[in-house]
Amino acid sequence: MKLKCVISFRGTAYCGWQVQKNGKSVQQTLQDASEKLFGFRPDVTGCSRTDSGVHAKYYVCTFSPAEGMTVPAEKVPTALNVFLPDDISVLSCERADDSFHPRYSAKGKEYTYLILNRPERDPFLSGLALHYKRPLNVEKMRECALPILGKHDFTSFMAKGSDIEDAVRTVSSLAVRKEGDLVSIKIAADGFLYNMVRIIVGTLIEASEGRFDRKDVERIIASRDRTLAGHTAKEYGLYLTGVYY
Amino acid sequence: MKLKCVISFRGTAYCGWQVQKNGKSVQQTLQDASEKLFGFRPDVTGCSRTDSGVHAKYYVCTFSPAEGMTVPAEKVPTALNVFLPDDISVLSCERADDSFHPRYSAKGKEYTYLILNRPERDPFLSGLALHYKRPLNVEKMRECALPILGKHDFTSFMAKGSDIEDAVRTVSSLAVRKEGDLVSIKIAADGFLYNMVRIIVGTLIEASEGRFDRKDVERIIASRDRTLAGHTAKEYGLYLTGVYY
Repeated sequence: MKLKCVISFRGTAYCGWQVQKNGKSVQQTLQDASEKLFGFRPDVTGCSRTDSGVHAKYYVCTFSPAEGMTVPAEKVPTALNVFLPDDISVLSCERADDSFHPRYSAKGKEYTYLILNRPERDPFLSGLALHYKRPLNVEKMRECALPILGKHDFTSFMAKGSDIEDAVRTVSSLAVRKEGDLVSIKIAADGFLYNMVRIIVGTLIEASEGRFDRKDVERIIASRDRTLAGHTAKEYGLYLTGVYY
Repeated sequence: MKLKCVISFRGTAYCGWQVQKNGKSVQQTLQDASEKLFGFRPDVTGCSRTDSGVHAKYYVCTFSPAEGMTVPAEKVPTALNVFLPDDISVLSCERADDSFHPRYSAKGKEYTYLILNRPERDPFLSGLALHYKRPLNVEKMRECALPILGKHDFTSFMAKGSDIEDAVRTVSSLAVRKEGDLVSIKIAADGFLYNMVRIIVGTLIEASEGRFDRKDVERIIASRDRTLAGHTAKEYGLYLTGVYY
């Protein structure tokens, strides 16, 4: 048995999910806290390697083995949060079979990218949204998002140097919304390549500025050439917001 | 002439609005930034002395004298924000007559208090909302808010030791809302006594727990006795959200 937990974290202070030599990781922070709670150091496995500074509203991870954990699963969130810093919170916890893997069992994920779109910054969104001062053309972004929907080889939207053989992914939804000064880009797919969401966002921002139209985006996808797509948008606007099993 | 600015700030790092011997104030930070921009140190006057840790989504202040400020008013937000830290933002700026005073000209103000009401904390609301774990009874809070509406002597809802002769204020609206896990208490009045909103919030929370009913709140107001009202809710859930002229 394992414990399956849904957590949320503000990524600002972390080098990302995964344990690294330099910098504090979310994974390591969870291991430290759970060692204090359970009296032994469990394996903590995550649903995604998030980048440094990337946030998660909904992130799934497992703690194993559950044998020897004397705290009932439903009490784990409250108990574990006592040992965790304010920027990580365990939202829920349940027991899961050993066959469950937070990453390999996932059928899909959803990311949301937030942009504050006005000249003046918002003190409450510092490090939590990209601040883009010129007005974004949301209609144009939506139009250029259309070719990205569906099943494609997304090599053009993958960070160079990625060691991935099969870059085919299916984007099931891609919504650009504007509420007041906030523009959000929500994207769901069966899987994501390294930096895929941030490159799609960078491309849509450049489309808004007139650098790309819909036909260009179709050509960019077909080219399988990273250099033709837009820039990689800053990490701190990105949130993991869903994982589907 | 003066410059009238609307600003927003996250109060976490400040000792409050007003310049103090110990600790960094918002007022002083604005004076420092405007000295860099204008080449002289203007008088900066605010609409309210906010407490240490209290936030503002909409705060009005003036910079004077405007004579000698060579930056056009409409460019001041962008220019001043360059010299301000991320937790303060100038949202808008216009010229105003010398007769305008951000505090004495105000006809009313609005504060909003935020409560995260669920067992698990939210990493994105740390220092930005009171975390109250037990379910709040919003209906009961609304019922007990009713006697607070209108014109009363609010001595019972004023911090002890306040040097105020006339504690009569008119509360024009007091709304308790629940959206998901967030409970917000929005209160507008022609003026507020020291800690008045935080004591009202503390009283409504205790009412939700069954310590007070509507009749008790009526008695508390009539008593003019601070010791009968509820506790002073934590400062970091409080936001100034409006000033009316």
